[in-house]
Amino acid sequence: MAKETTAEPLDVIPTEGENCHTAHHLCMPEDSRKRAARRLAIARGHLESIRRSLEDPNVYCVDVLRQIKAVQGALDGAASVVLRGHLEAHVATAATRGDEKELVEELMDALKYI
Amino acid sequence: MAKETTAEPLDVIPTEGENCHTAHHLCMPEDSRKRAARRLAIARGHLESIRRSLEDPNVYCVDVLRQIKAVQGALDGAASVVLRGHLEAHVATAATRGDEKELVEELMDALKYI
Amino acid sequence: MAKETTAEPLDVIPTEGENCHTAHHLCMPEDSRKRAARRLAIARGHLESIRRSLEDPNVYCVDVLRQIKAVQGALDGAASVVLRGHLEAHVATAATRGDEKELVEELMDALKYI
Amino acid sequence: MAKETTAEPLDVIPTEGENCHTAHHLCMPEDSRKRAARRLAIARGHLESIRRSLEDPNVYCVDVLRQIKAVQGALDGAASVVLRGHLEAHVATAATRGDEKELVEELMDALKYI
Repeated sequence: MAKETTAEPLDVIPTEGENCHTAHHLCMPEDSRKRAARRLAIARGHLESIRRSLEDPNVYCVDVLRQIKAVQGALDGAASVVLRGHLEAHVATAATRGDEKELVEELMDALKYI
Repeated sequence: MAKETTAEPLDVIPTEGENCHTAHHLCMPEDSRKRAARRLAIARGHLESIRRSLEDPNVYCVDVLRQIKAVQGALDGAASVVLRGHLEAHVATAATRGDEKELVEELMDALKYI
Repeated sequence: MAKETTAEPLDVIPTEGENCHTAHHLCMPEDSRKRAARRLAIARGHLESIRRSLEDPNVYCVDVLRQIKAVQGALDGAASVVLRGHLEAHVATAATRGDEKELVEELMDALKYI
Repeated sequence: MAKETTAEPLDVIPTEGENCHTAHHLCMPEDSRKRAARRLAIARGHLESIRRSLEDPNVYCVDVLRQIKAVQGALDGAASVVLRGHLEAHVATAATRGDEKELVEELMDALKYI
């Protein structure tokens, strides 16, 4: 899922580091990756506990609605971590690489679904 | 998490059926429960695959954002199933039980977080 | 825009009152109508002041974004007033009129766009 | 509401043009300003017609809900125009001015309310 902004395929997948945030290859900052992964793991556990609660015939609709909304809040938080990392590492530096048109277009498209 | 609308505790948890949707005990319709559980199981699997994709240093921010948004869409779908069951089984029949004030208050409060 | 739940046209538009919330004609509760109208008038004024601020070449994007979001919050509030009135006056009493299927279907459809 | 990123006040408000997008002063791109203003004018007209419809005692709740949602969609469109202009003119060029930290912080804060 790594980002290629030119047509030529890269022979070598860059290791994370100085050549990671170039016009050829944009990698998610490590800190964002780890923080987002942690939040997703928590959300998955919460989702599993809601799913299990639905095995009880006495579960109440509004309690389930509230739990689902709590998970959506957690996912908003995870998306926020990813978006901030993207803005800092890739969008704010776009003019120095020359891919600002493409990056803004792509981000606007992704945010539409928020 | 079953709903009690009176202060007196129930001695016996009603089995699902005719005495389930009374002012004393409101149970989630079985069909909603099963359909919501199925959707949550799928969302949990999707969430786990996103979390795993974050172990790859070459993962791209915008791909992750899009995946998180897809899971949020799935959770909206699950919440929709639950809300519809609640409206049909509990809210639309509230005037026949006399608990409309409480049910509407509670639902408005839960929807605030949507 | 009054709601007709039968195919036969009404000869007489009911005056607001006892025959307003029947299967033939569902009117918005007067209190909801007045409160929602007040909120919409305030939102419209706010929107006009944002529009005017855009005539100034020195206006800053993020300030405009924040102002638009404030108006959306006000509209959420107005929608909330209308939804609460609908749940209380129409949905919670649906089983006594026998139009619960139609009302829930219609509401779920309208909430999709929220 | 123009953006100042330094503490010293500007003696002269820059005219729109080359000195507009500097670390000292960020102006909204003219095209975004005009397009957003047009959309807000349409939304305001729509809002006024909903407000007027609420003077009719026969107005139906769900019709009002749908109309309010349509205006919120229009405001989402206007916010989108503003956000795109901001990303292109200010965020994508931040690293060339050195204010990326501040711009990303501010944008994340503004998007929280979306």
